[in-house]
Amino acid sequence: MSERYFVTGGAGFVGSNLVDRLLERGAQVVVYDNLSTGFESFLSEAKKSKQFTLVPGDILDQASLKQAMQGCGFVFHLSANADVRFGTQHPRRDLDQNTFGTFNVLEAMRESGIRRIAFSSTGSIYGEAAVIPTPEDAPLPIQTSLYGASKLAGEGLIQAYCAGFDFQAWIFRFVSILGDRYTHGHVFDFYKKLLADPTKLAVLGDGQQRKSYLHVQDCIDAIFCALERSTEPVNIFNLGTNEYCKVNDSLGWICQELGVNPEFEYSGGERGWIGDNPFIFLDTTRIRALGWEPKFNIQQSVLKTLQYLRANQELLVRV
Amino acid sequence: MSERYFVTGGAGFVGSNLVDRLLERGAQVVVYDNLSTGFESFLSEAKKSKQFTLVPGDILDQASLKQAMQGCGFVFHLSANADVRFGTQHPRRDLDQNTFGTFNVLEAMRESGIRRIAFSSTGSIYGEAAVIPTPEDAPLPIQTSLYGASKLAGEGLIQAYCAGFDFQAWIFRFVSILGDRYTHGHVFDFYKKLLADPTKLAVLGDGQQRKSYLHVQDCIDAIFCALERSTEPVNIFNLGTNEYCKVNDSLGWICQELGVNPEFEYSGGERGWIGDNPFIFLDTTRIRALGWEPKFNIQQSVLKTLQYLRANQELLVRV
Repeated sequence: MSERYFVTGGAGFVGSNLVDRLLERGAQVVVYDNLSTGFESFLSEAKKSKQFTLVPGDILDQASLKQAMQGCGFVFHLSANADVRFGTQHPRRDLDQNTFGTFNVLEAMRESGIRRIAFSSTGSIYGEAAVIPTPEDAPLPIQTSLYGASKLAGEGLIQAYCAGFDFQAWIFRFVSILGDRYTHGHVFDFYKKLLADPTKLAVLGDGQQRKSYLHVQDCIDAIFCALERSTEPVNIFNLGTNEYCKVNDSLGWICQELGVNPEFEYSGGERGWIGDNPFIFLDTTRIRALGWEPKFNIQQSVLKTLQYLRANQELLVRV
Repeated sequence: MSERYFVTGGAGFVGSNLVDRLLERGAQVVVYDNLSTGFESFLSEAKKSKQFTLVPGDILDQASLKQAMQGCGFVFHLSANADVRFGTQHPRRDLDQNTFGTFNVLEAMRESGIRRIAFSSTGSIYGEAAVIPTPEDAPLPIQTSLYGASKLAGEGLIQAYCAGFDFQAWIFRFVSILGDRYTHGHVFDFYKKLLADPTKLAVLGDGQQRKSYLHVQDCIDAIFCALERSTEPVNIFNLGTNEYCKVNDSLGWICQELGVNPEFEYSGGERGWIGDNPFIFLDTTRIRALGWEPKFNIQQSVLKTLQYLRANQELLVRV
């Protein structure tokens, strides 16, 4: 890997882990991140490498984005508003950051003669899927969240650039990712609440929601596998494990690990929030056919994430 | 129909025909149009009605849009950059007008307490469909044009507003529409060229492309039918006839009607331009199941369109 990679959102959870892995493989890496939800401290190892450059900047700043990209041959576009839950509180944010931001990245690439892009999409684009486990060519879904809608729109723009401007793209539809540097999601929320009060725990929904998770290192293994072995103009992959768990399963693992026995206070209902999907389970046959398989199951990923948060409690107050 | 309807793009081809039909049914109508591709003359009949108001304005002007919408109960959002062919010449235009514009309409509605919307989408969102005739729940497509991508993104936003803000939506995926006030497309282009030189005619592609068309009055009949009989939160319908024709078929009908016999100069290739879809044919079982059927076949629609253009040649130079 002698190439120079541009990583938007490279100071974030998935991004910073990807950056470390790219540097391990001998690549040059330019991270472009506005540090709004990412942390410069996640790049402390990366910064020791001469192959690494950090450019603070926002993908909505077209001039800065284009300038930072010069000399790179490949773009990992991971920068995003990555929280599906709060879209209705600020309807413009997902569209700006995930759709318009992706357009800006594509335009900067086009103007710079860079034509290869990997994109972090999401299983949320399937809405409440009619087919479970859900394959990449599932029936055209109805969007149930602004987040999913904004990411599907980002996918569509990338695909249109492949057709119109000879780009090549790898689009990854993630389940929820867990692991080191995890900074939002249910493990984070539950742990933070239990630290404050181990006797009771508020749970959104009825706890029966079935969800899927993948460890960040397995996620990055899958991305590298697809980049090496899938060579279509547009390459789309679901990324997840071959299982799902209930919110209550995960709660049980977390409480046991922490040695607490709280009273659960369910908000009730099949959905924890507007747009919450009660059953997320992706069909990963396509990426597995390339030879990839995950090293960690969901329980292991939840527990490793919890162990990371216990060792890095400063994240709980910084986020 | 005693309601007050807001029609974006109401001075355009489909919009102005819809406005006339709404007024015939006794409705009040507010047209909001920037007159960039629409014509005020298309509203000359409508202007005779006391039920009609024209507000010149752009959907990207959020304040003006919201003000014009006050007092309306239903929005027909037809305003768009409606030409699929030239996306790569101005990559931002489709995104701005079709995606961001739709977001502005949705936000203006939300702030105004209006929750029902009909949207003119397109069969282009299916890309080069894997299933033909293509049903509404076709396998998730790969976008092949910026136009299709921008319209699918508009659909996604509307769907997310239905989930998040209790909107109700009717989304119509049109084939190419023909009929009175038609101002762009193959009949327009061929007629204009043949007027200039009836001895030869440049044709994009090999003439074997299979395309679908629907008469604008049939299109409006279908819209009214769906609004009356389909009551889901999100209602999606393909609109088209039960047939397709080849470009060469349509060329033959046009030349015969004009009494010309030009030499055809094919640019060659299966596709006429980047993103051209060589076979468009939508499955319209869903709208037919509601009792709608078209009155005109494709040949009749092509000939009626040609007759309109012959009687309104000033359009050929104004567009």
